[in-house]
Amino acid sequence: MKTDLDHLMSDRDLAAVIVVSEEHYNATRDYLTHGARVSGGFVVKPHGQPPVMVVNPMETEEAKASGLQVISYSDLGYHDLVKQYGDQPGKLRAMWWQTILRGVGITSGKVGVYGAGDLNIFIELFRQLERELQGIQLVGEQGRTLFDEAMTTKDAAEISRMRDVARKTNEVMALTWDYIAGHRALGEGVVNADGQALTIGMVRRFVRRELLERDLEDTGMIFAQGRDGGFPHSRGQDRDALQQGQAIVFDLFPREFGGGYHHDMTRTWCIGYAPAQIQEAYGQVIEAFDRALELTKVGATGDLPQITVMDYFESLGHPTQRSKPGTSDGYTHSLGHGVGLNIHERPRLHHLFKDVLQAGSVVTIEPGLYYADQGYGIRIEDTVLLEPSGALTNLTPFHKQLVLPLGG
Amino acid sequence: MKTDLDHLMSDRDLAAVIVVSEEHYNATRDYLTHGARVSGGFVVKPHGQPPVMVVNPMETEEAKASGLQVISYSDLGYHDLVKQYGDQPGKLRAMWWQTILRGVGITSGKVGVYGAGDLNIFIELFRQLERELQGIQLVGEQGRTLFDEAMTTKDAAEISRMRDVARKTNEVMALTWDYIAGHRALGEGVVNADGQALTIGMVRRFVRRELLERDLEDTGMIFAQGRDGGFPHSRGQDRDALQQGQAIVFDLFPREFGGGYHHDMTRTWCIGYAPAQIQEAYGQVIEAFDRALELTKVGATGDLPQITVMDYFESLGHPTQRSKPGTSDGYTHSLGHGVGLNIHERPRLHHLFKDVLQAGSVVTIEPGLYYADQGYGIRIEDTVLLEPSGALTNLTPFHKQLVLPLGG
Repeated sequence: MKTDLDHLMSDRDLAAVIVVSEEHYNATRDYLTHGARVSGGFVVKPHGQPPVMVVNPMETEEAKASGLQVISYSDLGYHDLVKQYGDQPGKLRAMWWQTILRGVGITSGKVGVYGAGDLNIFIELFRQLERELQGIQLVGEQGRTLFDEAMTTKDAAEISRMRDVARKTNEVMALTWDYIAGHRALGEGVVNADGQALTIGMVRRFVRRELLERDLEDTGMIFAQGRDGGFPHSRGQDRDALQQGQAIVFDLFPREFGGGYHHDMTRTWCIGYAPAQIQEAYGQVIEAFDRALELTKVGATGDLPQITVMDYFESLGHPTQRSKPGTSDGYTHSLGHGVGLNIHERPRLHHLFKDVLQAGSVVTIEPGLYYADQGYGIRIEDTVLLEPSGALTNLTPFHKQLVLPLGG
Repeated sequence: MKTDLDHLMSDRDLAAVIVVSEEHYNATRDYLTHGARVSGGFVVKPHGQPPVMVVNPMETEEAKASGLQVISYSDLGYHDLVKQYGDQPGKLRAMWWQTILRGVGITSGKVGVYGAGDLNIFIELFRQLERELQGIQLVGEQGRTLFDEAMTTKDAAEISRMRDVARKTNEVMALTWDYIAGHRALGEGVVNADGQALTIGMVRRFVRRELLERDLEDTGMIFAQGRDGGFPHSRGQDRDALQQGQAIVFDLFPREFGGGYHHDMTRTWCIGYAPAQIQEAYGQVIEAFDRALELTKVGATGDLPQITVMDYFESLGHPTQRSKPGTSDGYTHSLGHGVGLNIHERPRLHHLFKDVLQAGSVVTIEPGLYYADQGYGIRIEDTVLLEPSGALTNLTPFHKQLVLPLGG
C-alpha cells in the first residue's frame, strides 16, 4: 500500500520517483495525488517525503485538491527556458526535467521514471536526458514495478471505495437482468411491449445509463452473444437482436466516473432456455470457479488455483493455455488478476507466475470455456477481497443462474 | 489526412512506423485502425502498404473490424519466445519487437515509434532495442510529428463524424440552458419546484445523461462558477449550489462514446442577471472572438488571430501571455487548437507558433479573461471547420447570450 512506497524505493536505491502525467487519466498519478483532476505535468516524490505536483499555472487550483505541495511551471521559470531553448524542443525538455528535479531538491542519485507518455517523444528525450542530466541517473523497471507492488495491497480507504463500486456494479447487473426479463418471447427472439426486437445496443445503453446514475462509467463492457462470446475480448455487436437459447457473456468492469477504482464481474446468461451442450459446459465452469475459490487464500501463490482449474478442464478434454499454448478453443486465458485503479493489476493468477496472494489484495476469479466454432463462450467472474484477517470476502454476490426467463 | 501518410513517411526516410497500443484508448491507433476496439498489441505500417494489426489471439475478432490484415501473437510464435526468454522480460520484449518487425517484412532501415506506453518499461526497452535490433534503427519525433501533420487535415468521412458530434453537443448545451431556466429564484439562489437548491453536481449529471443518450461521453467538462471560473482548468465543485449573478464557465468537449472525435465549445452564463463588471468584460471577450474569427482563414498562420486578440486585450489594460508570461490574470492562454480524435491537436493558434491554417482543419477559437481574485472568469469558444473550398463553417451555432433568465 501507499505507506510501503518509501521502503520500496529504498529497495531500489531510488532518491526519487518522477511520474509523467499525460492529458488522459493516469492511474499512477491518481494513486499519488488522490484523484486531483489535472491534465499534464509531473508528480515527483523524493525518498522519505510526500509527493510534489508540478503543473501548468492553469492547473494549480485543481492540483491543490490533492492536498500536496503544488509548484507551478511559472514558479520554476519555465517561460525563461522557453525563451532560451524554444527552437530546440528536445533540449528544452531535457533542461526542464533538470529544473524540475532540482526544484524538489534532487541533484544526484537514481530517479525512477513512471507514468505514461508519447513514445515518439520519449525515445529521443531519454537519449537526450542521458547526455544532459548531471549526476542523476534515470532508471526504469520491467516486470513487477514499485507501483505494482504498492498497489497490490489496498488500505482501508481504498477498500471502502472498492466495496462501494462493487455494490453499485452488482445493482446494475441485477437491474439489467430485470430489464431483459421484462421483455417477451417472439419465436426465438426477444421483443418489448411494442413488439420491437431488443438489441445488444439497447441493453448496453441501459447499462451505461444505470452506471451513470451511480457515478460509475463503462470502460468497455462485453455483452457478446453466441459465436461472439466464443472470443474472450469480443465486445458484441450493437445491431444484433437478442436470441433465446444463446449463451451471452456479460463482462462488466466499470470504474468511478472520470477515473478511479474498478469492479470486475462476468455472468453468462441464456434467455428463455439453455441447450444441453451449454448447460453442461456451464456446470463445468461453475465447478472450476468453486475449486478456484477454495484455493484463493492469503499466503498461497496465484498459480495454484489456475493449475487446479487447468487440471480439471484438461481432465474433461478441454484444451488450455498449458496443454496447447495459444489455443483459442477451451480455457484460453489465466484465472484472474488484481483489480484497483487499473483494471488489470498484480497479483496474477497465472500458471507461469508465483505472485503471492496478500492480505489487502482484491482479485478476480474468472474461469471460462470458449468454442467460437460451436457458437458459444462461457465465463463466470467474481471479484474477491482478501481481508487483512486472512478471510476471503466475495464482493460480487449477484446470483449465478444461467437461464434468464422472460416474464414480460 | 490519412492519404498523406506515405509521403510524410518518405519525408522522414521511414521504412515503417510502429504504433504501440495500450490497454487504454489510443488516438493514433484509432486513426490507423478505424476504431477497432482492441486493448494492447501493435499496429505496423510499412511504407507504401496498409497498416497491419498484431494482437493477442483473444483480440483477433475485434481487430478484424478494422478491415486490416490481422496477425495474432500465436502466428508469430510468441509462446516459443516466452519459453525461451520468460525469465528476462527486457530481452523477451526486444526479441518480440524484432519478430514483429520481421513478421511484416521490415529487416532494415528507420522505423518511427509512435503511440503511448509505460515509461518505466520503455526507458529500459529502448536501450535494449538499440543493442539487439540488427539493421533497424528506431527513431522518434519531437515537435510536430508525422501523425500531427496527417491529422491536421480531415477527410470527408472524418468531417461528417465531426459535424455529427458538433450537432449533438450543441443540442446538449441547449438542453442544459433549458434545464437551468426551468428552475426558479430563491433569494440569490436557484431552486427546483420542491425548493431544493440546484447544485453543479446535478447539472453535471444532467449533461452526462444527455450526452449518453446521444452516444457521446464526457471527457472532463468544466462547469465552474465565480472564483473557480477564474482558473481556466478548474472543473467546478459538484457540491456548490448555483448562484445568480455569478459568471459560470461551461466548457463542454465530449467525444464519441468509447473514444473517437470530439467537439469543443464553451459558453459563459450569468443566471438571472449579470453585474456591470462581468457584462463589460463579456463584451470584450465577444469582441475578441469576432476579431479572431475574421482572421481565421485558409492559408493564414495561427499566430495572427492570437496576436490580434492580444493587441486588443492589452489595449484595454489586460495582461496577456505576451505582456506578462505566466500570468494567471487577464488573457492567460492561447487562442485555440485543432480538434479531432485528440482534444488538442495541431494547428495551434498561438503567438509563438507559425502553424498554417489548412483546408480540412477543424479548430477552436476561445478567447477568455480570468480574474480569480475578483471572483470571475469568462470564456467563449466555438469550433470551426476550414472547408476544402476555403470557406469557414462554424460548427457551434448555439447562441452567445450571457444572461440566463429563470422561468420556472
